[in-house]
Amino acid sequence: MTVRYLEDYPVGAEAEFGSVAVDEGEVRAFAERYDPQPFHIDPEAAKRSPYGGLIASGWHTGAMMMRLVVDHFIDGEASLGSPGLGPIHWKRPVRPGDTLRVRARITGNRRSTSKPDRGTVTFTCDVLNQSDEIVMTIDQWVGIIRARPAAGAAASPAQGSW
Amino acid sequence: MTVRYLEDYPVGAEAEFGSVAVDEGEVRAFAERYDPQPFHIDPEAAKRSPYGGLIASGWHTGAMMMRLVVDHFIDGEASLGSPGLGPIHWKRPVRPGDTLRVRARITGNRRSTSKPDRGTVTFTCDVLNQSDEIVMTIDQWVGIIRARPAAGAAASPAQGSW
Repeated sequence: MTVRYLEDYPVGAEAEFGSVAVDEGEVRAFAERYDPQPFHIDPEAAKRSPYGGLIASGWHTGAMMMRLVVDHFIDGEASLGSPGLGPIHWKRPVRPGDTLRVRARITGNRRSTSKPDRGTVTFTCDVLNQSDEIVMTIDQWVGIIRARPAAGAAASPAQGSW
Repeated sequence: MTVRYLEDYPVGAEAEFGSVAVDEGEVRAFAERYDPQPFHIDPEAAKRSPYGGLIASGWHTGAMMMRLVVDHFIDGEASLGSPGLGPIHWKRPVRPGDTLRVRARITGNRRSTSKPDRGTVTFTCDVLNQSDEIVMTIDQWVGIIRARPAAGAAASPAQGSW
């Protein structure tokens, strides 16, 4: 597989990718460990809540999204992590049985002047459900990505295609 | 236990709470499922990375923080979830063996005019390690919190004490 480097994230490119089924057992297990609010862990309490049933923790939705981003968008070989992102907006409940995918749009690409072997890619990220509703948005995600090693450098940024 | 309602989050109050030990097995298990970048899952690859060793996924750090927030700060009985938060800043690596705690500061408290049985509490949130370094910051977290039911309403906001 070709590694995707800094040069391979052209500003303006948009990608839609991935698919994850939201599983009730996982929703509850994640929340039991990390976010034990009643509407994430207790189906009966969740029914009485304003959500009318179990919903995934926003951190779980973010984690499921991250997996799709790592599988399809950010290259593990070239990624150097992230200094931050957001704000995050949780726009609609995510429920067991939903199927989520991600839409990302590249808004910035800047090579570091102090460390020219890398740079930052900035993108927005929407998580959509099976009804094409946006359930979560991340306004500005900053990723640190390695530049292509000089020997294999391309003359110009590749066009985005995912 | 007394439920903590909207009135119990006075603007300006600061709270420091919780303790979670970052476990290597959990760091790797979380990342295998949700964020399989080499420096989160592979000790050898992590050694060769700029981090010099395994670090927790930022989503895992957020999830560990959320557990402390639910255990100590947001009341599961009064919480109605969150429409969003951030930006998030991941300032320093979180490593297996670290011990994390949370510092929150309440920056806003506003009762809803359309639904006066609830309101929003806004706070900033720092995650600190055992060396008192801030590893993660959330600039603006918005929580929707139930107001105290009228029968038991207090005359004035309680003073924050966690």
